[in-house]
Amino acid sequence: MNNELKRFDVAQLAHVEIFTPDPDGTLWFFKDILGMTEVEREGQSVYLRSYEDFYHHSLKVTERNEPGLGHVSWRASSKNALERRVEEIAKSGAGLGWIEGDLGHGAAYQFLTPDNHKMEILWDVDYYKCPADQTTLLKNRPQKRPTRGVPVRRIDHVNLLSSNPTPNKQFMMQELGFNLREHVVQNDGGELGTWLSVSPLVHELAFMKDQGTSEKGLGRLHHVAFWYGFPQHLHDLSEILTEHNIQIEAGPLKHGVSQAMCMYVFEPGGNRIELFGDSGYLIFDPDWKPVRWEESELEKAIIYYGAPLPDSYFKRGTPQVKAPVISEG
Amino acid sequence: MNNELKRFDVAQLAHVEIFTPDPDGTLWFFKDILGMTEVEREGQSVYLRSYEDFYHHSLKVTERNEPGLGHVSWRASSKNALERRVEEIAKSGAGLGWIEGDLGHGAAYQFLTPDNHKMEILWDVDYYKCPADQTTLLKNRPQKRPTRGVPVRRIDHVNLLSSNPTPNKQFMMQELGFNLREHVVQNDGGELGTWLSVSPLVHELAFMKDQGTSEKGLGRLHHVAFWYGFPQHLHDLSEILTEHNIQIEAGPLKHGVSQAMCMYVFEPGGNRIELFGDSGYLIFDPDWKPVRWEESELEKAIIYYGAPLPDSYFKRGTPQVKAPVISEG
Amino acid sequence: MNNELKRFDVAQLAHVEIFTPDPDGTLWFFKDILGMTEVEREGQSVYLRSYEDFYHHSLKVTERNEPGLGHVSWRASSKNALERRVEEIAKSGAGLGWIEGDLGHGAAYQFLTPDNHKMEILWDVDYYKCPADQTTLLKNRPQKRPTRGVPVRRIDHVNLLSSNPTPNKQFMMQELGFNLREHVVQNDGGELGTWLSVSPLVHELAFMKDQGTSEKGLGRLHHVAFWYGFPQHLHDLSEILTEHNIQIEAGPLKHGVSQAMCMYVFEPGGNRIELFGDSGYLIFDPDWKPVRWEESELEKAIIYYGAPLPDSYFKRGTPQVKAPVISEG
Amino acid sequence: MNNELKRFDVAQLAHVEIFTPDPDGTLWFFKDILGMTEVEREGQSVYLRSYEDFYHHSLKVTERNEPGLGHVSWRASSKNALERRVEEIAKSGAGLGWIEGDLGHGAAYQFLTPDNHKMEILWDVDYYKCPADQTTLLKNRPQKRPTRGVPVRRIDHVNLLSSNPTPNKQFMMQELGFNLREHVVQNDGGELGTWLSVSPLVHELAFMKDQGTSEKGLGRLHHVAFWYGFPQHLHDLSEILTEHNIQIEAGPLKHGVSQAMCMYVFEPGGNRIELFGDSGYLIFDPDWKPVRWEESELEKAIIYYGAPLPDSYFKRGTPQVKAPVISEG
Repeated sequence: MNNELKRFDVAQLAHVEIFTPDPDGTLWFFKDILGMTEVEREGQSVYLRSYEDFYHHSLKVTERNEPGLGHVSWRASSKNALERRVEEIAKSGAGLGWIEGDLGHGAAYQFLTPDNHKMEILWDVDYYKCPADQTTLLKNRPQKRPTRGVPVRRIDHVNLLSSNPTPNKQFMMQELGFNLREHVVQNDGGELGTWLSVSPLVHELAFMKDQGTSEKGLGRLHHVAFWYGFPQHLHDLSEILTEHNIQIEAGPLKHGVSQAMCMYVFEPGGNRIELFGDSGYLIFDPDWKPVRWEESELEKAIIYYGAPLPDSYFKRGTPQVKAPVISEG
Repeated sequence: MNNELKRFDVAQLAHVEIFTPDPDGTLWFFKDILGMTEVEREGQSVYLRSYEDFYHHSLKVTERNEPGLGHVSWRASSKNALERRVEEIAKSGAGLGWIEGDLGHGAAYQFLTPDNHKMEILWDVDYYKCPADQTTLLKNRPQKRPTRGVPVRRIDHVNLLSSNPTPNKQFMMQELGFNLREHVVQNDGGELGTWLSVSPLVHELAFMKDQGTSEKGLGRLHHVAFWYGFPQHLHDLSEILTEHNIQIEAGPLKHGVSQAMCMYVFEPGGNRIELFGDSGYLIFDPDWKPVRWEESELEKAIIYYGAPLPDSYFKRGTPQVKAPVISEG
Repeated sequence: MNNELKRFDVAQLAHVEIFTPDPDGTLWFFKDILGMTEVEREGQSVYLRSYEDFYHHSLKVTERNEPGLGHVSWRASSKNALERRVEEIAKSGAGLGWIEGDLGHGAAYQFLTPDNHKMEILWDVDYYKCPADQTTLLKNRPQKRPTRGVPVRRIDHVNLLSSNPTPNKQFMMQELGFNLREHVVQNDGGELGTWLSVSPLVHELAFMKDQGTSEKGLGRLHHVAFWYGFPQHLHDLSEILTEHNIQIEAGPLKHGVSQAMCMYVFEPGGNRIELFGDSGYLIFDPDWKPVRWEESELEKAIIYYGAPLPDSYFKRGTPQVKAPVISEG
Repeated sequence: MNNELKRFDVAQLAHVEIFTPDPDGTLWFFKDILGMTEVEREGQSVYLRSYEDFYHHSLKVTERNEPGLGHVSWRASSKNALERRVEEIAKSGAGLGWIEGDLGHGAAYQFLTPDNHKMEILWDVDYYKCPADQTTLLKNRPQKRPTRGVPVRRIDHVNLLSSNPTPNKQFMMQELGFNLREHVVQNDGGELGTWLSVSPLVHELAFMKDQGTSEKGLGRLHHVAFWYGFPQHLHDLSEILTEHNIQIEAGPLKHGVSQAMCMYVFEPGGNRIELFGDSGYLIFDPDWKPVRWEESELEKAIIYYGAPLPDSYFKRGTPQVKAPVISEG
């Protein structure tokens, strides 16, 4: 019966931590342009959330000499579910052990993916305490919609670069109960990208093959995605980004994989951020067969319509690699 | 552990059957205006689906002298989950027993809610077999997007009228594992409306107090909802409905409950259909506390912005009642 | 040939002045919620513009004990055109004479409509001088798009209440060359509303019958309209207005007349402001026959789809009348 | 005074004729995908219109062995205006003389631009006679909104390739009274593109430098544009085009010039068609100074945000040239 429960044991993406060498620029981007709210500061870290994120924070920004991924935090479905998953992860040898907690949450169990992305799983979270002047009549919304920038609504997913997506995918499926929703498979059988979820979202987590380096275990971040749900907001944001000299890497465009209408930008600290402009599609089928895109279908998998993706999309991640080993072709 | 599994045992709304006294009008509405696809016919029934519904059908339209609800069909999360739920429902005394199946699915266990809405739960489903000329490069979409009308994407939820929402809600929570997401509570503690789900959607199922009659057990339908996900499509549809003399009861508007941007129309057979134009919000928190709207907050619960709802919204359901007992005030 | 030129002699709505008893509230509304830019202050007046208004200002807000219309300013097509129009207006007896100018423009000739709405016509205007940090790469836009509120793009039109729209309409057609685009005609031949323009816009100016008073010559304002051009922005604005307790009188909805998707709100000073969310339709036909809506078609003329309009829409204007004489029915 | 009238003498783009070697494909595209209505056929020609085009037709499709431009038809502001323009054009030596008329309009005066694009100017037009089952309650709309494809609303503009935009621009300004709204100027002073209009639209007509050939006088077509006014419709159309194997050349994207949100596709006959998804901006200023984009600003002039344009955009026109002379760089 543990087996039956496994696929329900992780409930959601709770938060992500990113590193930035330019905290002022990064905070300006998330607060003034994406309309996020600063909740708290401690040491070199600032805790932020979108206006429909219910917990204390969904993004932790930590100053560091290089951009990159701090960690990814998953919330279990219950205290029991947390215990089940920790037991399995520990058995797998990937565990780093418990931490006491952080601002906004209690004890969390940390671990590494095969490619050394740091993650944690937890149960105890603090809910956002809304100041009186920010409460709204809309009782299912934790605060008023901000009037700054083009405000994102919630954190959506994280996309990680890896030397080989397959073992990372297998780890998340076997130890944490993730479901494979879509993948792009090369002619030689290797996976170029895998999209995984624990909910009807097509992904809270993706692993893509790092084409910028052949080194293993770098734990590189491709992007963190925030969600709008309305296509117009990508257009609004595009204008503001252009007028404030923030580099739009690609989009607005529509992916085949996940049907996401989206765009990619680099925040001033150097990390790639995706903005998600519609709902994509949702998977309710409990017996879902992963959608398999062949190498020959790669073009439509990546871009259903809209701009082609630049080379940087496939090769650039954070931290940046010193001397990128460029794959031929 | 059964208890831990219960809340995951129902996976999704599979399909809804409605009755119509005007099958030609009803089919024209769903096919030509909402762009749905006719899949099969048998006897007095026609089976339809939206272009992103993955199974054989999501809507069964059956000729009958009066409009109303045929039945609501839920898909379990697994064969085991089906067995667990059937055992519980049978014990509760609400069971009607197994049927062998129908076009598009295998054996299903039927039962009645306390207010006599007919439902079923099943596991075996047929997937839609797309004709060659309708297949699409978008591999996560079961057919091309239709070029007729303003095509809906998938079935979303069903809303049922009841003499008292509370016991109906309790039944679905206790026997089928639904979660209460939001409710409107009168000053006397009675519930005016309850919104329930088994997924991050705020509701696949709602019960609202029937203000058009005080009779019990009528099994009346308030509406079936189909999903667009894009606000513009409500505007597009509004124009077409107006130009084709289909009555728009209300909207486009935005509910406080569920944050749904939506509109309500009566299909030619007389049933109310809701069209859902954005994503509302999604609930990923595994420890969600139901949002409670007080009677004094009713106005914002019902309409966050946009048109007020006409009296018919609260009193009219299908089948229509002969001599409506109108509640005062 | 003067006759051939007349219909081209007025080029556009240049600006509108409104009165407010609550300048702080009014300025907060236009600057923080509608994202307008304060350009200059003098005496009791503040000059504002939308981010795609090219001139010094499009809205002048003047403190006064009651809300209402200050004046409406039209820009002529040329210096010659200005002279031609002034000569005709003066002959008609409606002229008030020349003023030297105001902040943002040179000499203007002032006059009164038959119902005493104060207007002016001018040629010399100052263009907005954009501060260096607000200039944009988009060379056809006079400043960056603001990141406050949901910013309006330009002034669109003004709608005036009158005891009888017909003579006001005739005055604007005969003396200023306006074209009648649409009108609603009662069974007795009287006009309930008239929509006039000098450009492909369906209206820069409307006169509606004042159903809140039978007094003549009050010069009442129904509303000033600002333009978004994108339907989503009405939805965005609706959320923000609701969360900041600004009264939405009606909408978002779609008018039959002018095909405008729009909404109406009261700014804190009490004046009604319309927000225009799409493009309506444009009239390029030089031989346009006015669209005539009969009394029996009134419903669709007013609301093509969406919310019905409340009684206040037909009776409330600024300044408010002390003891409204309510027309029967 | 003739001089004062000249800039008002042309009122609008009336219709465009294109040639197609694949009339079945071309008609399928315009009728089934763009939702246009076939009005009449004669000889090798089919006459079509969008659902908000008021006249008999806005597009004439004529079978020919090669795609390309048939002619562009302008409507004068009055009979007098027509006479004035014909007199001037005749004097300029560009006139081809009067034709008796065509289906949908009366006598027209034909002429050639310096690069041999065939044009005509006319006054007498037939209005679309709507069949009874297509009339709408929306009295300012000439027919119901179609329920096929993603229906375009009206013709918007035409863009022509020329060996040198400057003399073509000068001809249209001097002989027909067009206004220069925006242009891109090379470092050597030559114009790469010019956008001209007779209304607040930024352009009904553009000339771009033909980078696919250095031959003069070819009268090549770059594209004809139809208007939606709603960004979502570009997304809807993109899906349908992709699923029906119609090549999207570029977009959706946003131009700097004209602020157009748009996309480009090749209809099956080979002509490039632009779809215009928002309103861009409108020019009401009667003293407009043309926006001048320098060569160094070319990138933002062409793409404000969204996909870069492929090489074909600058070099491909219809008819296609046999051995394109490719300009270096």
